[in-house]
Amino acid sequence: MFLLNGERRHCVDVSDRGFQYGDGLFETIEVFQSKPLFLPRHLKRLQKGCERLLIPLPELTLLEDEAAQLCVGVERAVLKIIVTRGSGGRGYRQPDSIVPTRLLGLHPFPQYPDCFQRDGIVARFCEQRLAINPVLAGIKHLNRLEQVLARAEWRSDDVQEGLMLDYDEHVVEGTMSNLFFVKNGVLHTPLLVNCGITGIVREIVIDFALCNNIVVCEQQFDKQSVLAADEVFVTNSVIGVWPIRRIDRQCFGVGRITRTIQQGYAQAREADTKL
Amino acid sequence: MFLLNGERRHCVDVSDRGFQYGDGLFETIEVFQSKPLFLPRHLKRLQKGCERLLIPLPELTLLEDEAAQLCVGVERAVLKIIVTRGSGGRGYRQPDSIVPTRLLGLHPFPQYPDCFQRDGIVARFCEQRLAINPVLAGIKHLNRLEQVLARAEWRSDDVQEGLMLDYDEHVVEGTMSNLFFVKNGVLHTPLLVNCGITGIVREIVIDFALCNNIVVCEQQFDKQSVLAADEVFVTNSVIGVWPIRRIDRQCFGVGRITRTIQQGYAQAREADTKL
Repeated sequence: MFLLNGERRHCVDVSDRGFQYGDGLFETIEVFQSKPLFLPRHLKRLQKGCERLLIPLPELTLLEDEAAQLCVGVERAVLKIIVTRGSGGRGYRQPDSIVPTRLLGLHPFPQYPDCFQRDGIVARFCEQRLAINPVLAGIKHLNRLEQVLARAEWRSDDVQEGLMLDYDEHVVEGTMSNLFFVKNGVLHTPLLVNCGITGIVREIVIDFALCNNIVVCEQQFDKQSVLAADEVFVTNSVIGVWPIRRIDRQCFGVGRITRTIQQGYAQAREADTKL
Repeated sequence: MFLLNGERRHCVDVSDRGFQYGDGLFETIEVFQSKPLFLPRHLKRLQKGCERLLIPLPELTLLEDEAAQLCVGVERAVLKIIVTRGSGGRGYRQPDSIVPTRLLGLHPFPQYPDCFQRDGIVARFCEQRLAINPVLAGIKHLNRLEQVLARAEWRSDDVQEGLMLDYDEHVVEGTMSNLFFVKNGVLHTPLLVNCGITGIVREIVIDFALCNNIVVCEQQFDKQSVLAADEVFVTNSVIGVWPIRRIDRQCFGVGRITRTIQQGYAQAREADTKL
């Protein structure tokens, strides 16, 4: 079910710059018991992204109302919000007056096996790299060919996620997730200044760690640092927190800090459902 | 006027991966007297792009027929062809069986003042950089935020084009064109291995130069090399060959080799209309 600029439609004009150039942004949000979880955080990130891309953000109350409308009676789903620069302009030049397109859509919540969260998943390092582009780093824009090509590197269901490096050999994130690892009791996560997306769950995990005496180290790491970790996990708004039990041929246990983080995220999630 | 998968429609499903991720390619073609010019070259580039992105190319004869159909009775226009990976798949993962979307659309041919081609245009160096990403270099894919942001840097009609560098300080191309410069009688153009689009007119210009005893040097150049040039020009399928008379505060004459290239392109264009 979709709401396109407030109307129940699922077709967008081919002149929309989202279709022509990937000129827009998106948010992927867990819906639970009619509630889009962590919506203010998602809308804040959307707002920052719109500022960076010079797209006027649709009224926040409008987005909130339409999200609420779509989610009525929905037990569990994925809400995707897309905002584009709309139609118009000549070529890459934007229209003098931008009328953004907004699309809210509900999608089925994927049914992942319990063992992914409990025992961990299998990941691999991808060949496809993330280009270094600080202007676009952090924001969840629509230019996602790198992720599409990285994901196309494997078809087997034996692997659940691919980890991506940038062209400076730094590990950045998964194709659809942020990455964390634990070494000597310290929680590490890549600094996302050159590429990557600053995830909402990533943010929640960092906040939780800092409030619970877990030292957090945010910097640039190479492949070896990740492979030498004691514990590794990935995060996003749909999977929550998944431990990684193997990357290529390197195995990992599901450690104490990962479990603590999973519990912390579960608590944050539960608190949010009650708001 | 649009043909979407062969039907007269101008609305695409919001689940199309072209809209979701910029997961596709495009061609921009001059139409003259009912003929899409240099169509085989454009379709060959589209084919190479589809191979790189692992998108099955729609039947070439289908694209040719639909292009011909759209162009009947059209004196002059711009034909844009978009091919996407269609809908389906879960997230970035592509569908097991890809049904590409093809869109052909006619757009008005822009009316540029004669003086652009005759006396040259004004350009500026952009702040926005092109990210280094060899896998995506050369192909005309839909992930165009860098060009959108570069073009947003100026609004004034006093400037016609912006020149973009990569993050290694190499000048690559214009926001909507390829770049050439002449120094000491040698034609130079950036080597497009890390980013940029290998233009059709760029190709024709290089072929013409090589056939007419003009030495062509394709390598990586810094800003200073361009600013120290004797002549500078830009190319694309809609503008043809435009001399640059000024980049920021550096002025250039319209030189002999640029004029020769303009004539050469005009001849190639005329020959193509007669095919």
